[in-house]
Amino acid sequence: MKLYTYFRSSAAYRVRIALNLKGLAWEAVPVHLVRGGGEQYGADYRALNPAGLVPALDDEGRVLTQSLAIIEYLDETHPEPPLLPANPADRARVRAIAQAIACDLHPLNNLRVLRYLKHELGVSDAQKDAWYRHWVGVGLGAVEAMLAADPATGAFCHGASPSLADCCLVPQVFNARRFDCDLSAMPTVVRIAERCEALEAFRLAAPAQQPDAE
Amino acid sequence: MKLYTYFRSSAAYRVRIALNLKGLAWEAVPVHLVRGGGEQYGADYRALNPAGLVPALDDEGRVLTQSLAIIEYLDETHPEPPLLPANPADRARVRAIAQAIACDLHPLNNLRVLRYLKHELGVSDAQKDAWYRHWVGVGLGAVEAMLAADPATGAFCHGASPSLADCCLVPQVFNARRFDCDLSAMPTVVRIAERCEALEAFRLAAPAQQPDAE
Repeated sequence: MKLYTYFRSSAAYRVRIALNLKGLAWEAVPVHLVRGGGEQYGADYRALNPAGLVPALDDEGRVLTQSLAIIEYLDETHPEPPLLPANPADRARVRAIAQAIACDLHPLNNLRVLRYLKHELGVSDAQKDAWYRHWVGVGLGAVEAMLAADPATGAFCHGASPSLADCCLVPQVFNARRFDCDLSAMPTVVRIAERCEALEAFRLAAPAQQPDAE
Repeated sequence: MKLYTYFRSSAAYRVRIALNLKGLAWEAVPVHLVRGGGEQYGADYRALNPAGLVPALDDEGRVLTQSLAIIEYLDETHPEPPLLPANPADRARVRAIAQAIACDLHPLNNLRVLRYLKHELGVSDAQKDAWYRHWVGVGLGAVEAMLAADPATGAFCHGASPSLADCCLVPQVFNARRFDCDLSAMPTVVRIAERCEALEAFRLAAPAQQPDAE
């Protein structure tokens, strides 16, 4: 499998974790999101993914997009170890945690949004940083409440093994630290992220370990 | 089942469509997102959904959050008619279309984001409208490319029956029209949305049909 990826892309990072947890062999095809205005907007990449976003996964010529859809596909085609629990209510909980990050939080702090704030709306760097930290606070605060209040939370977001939710949590915590966000009100989030980061599958998926890391 | 909903919430609208497509009996519990600063931030609702967002679904005392997670739960617990295709690659395609809307587009134009732009960043109404239309153009433009280029697209986003993708598409097109966005470059999106809107399940889920419609 080939993963079109950028070392710092949070969505690509999620899929890298999932590929590693599944023990699958994969090759990184770097797409530079910044250089030359962004390689993701070039005709070559647009032909693969019209949305001009990473990641995209090429599985023997079939190209898949959207990180959560890709991870569910990997879970359906390579069931072991499972990244979703067996019963519907538990599956819904894991997906809801993942989506609280992937739908409610991450899109607001994406590169193209920060660029719009700066170039179209002319906000200052301080305002941009405040925006970033505001949505991390709101978004990871919601995730903390979902995790801390629920006995289904274990060493990981759901029970004793990593799931789709953890694939989303760790890249978001990485981003939050990179932008010096205050995570002191989110002890469960931090505890689980640190537990994940001790695993090789997560460690090898980290931005600094990628061939395109800068 | 009880659905905590707001007539204009795009995410609640998705779940209303899914409940109707499944032919399930459900009761609307309106949560007013504007009145009094937003009932979704009250302690009563936060106890149900710490994220303070609609929708939430109460299925015999089990509370589920996040619209896509809820719809997948409904599809797993009430399989007929299916809202996802049978094979993994097709399922990934439907989820990717849904997520192109629910992750890449909708979060940027959510009420709380528009409020932040206005109250924290002091942008003008014209700038706020331009922001809204920009992300609709980018986001639905990507969906149009995903749909128009793929022979798997049929009368609906995927084949000949409505899926999770259509549950997401119709509310987003509703929003786009409400904000006078130009959809002339998105003929496939518009064609499919109109096809869906002719079905009773979609019609009865529309904002104007809700008990809390204003």
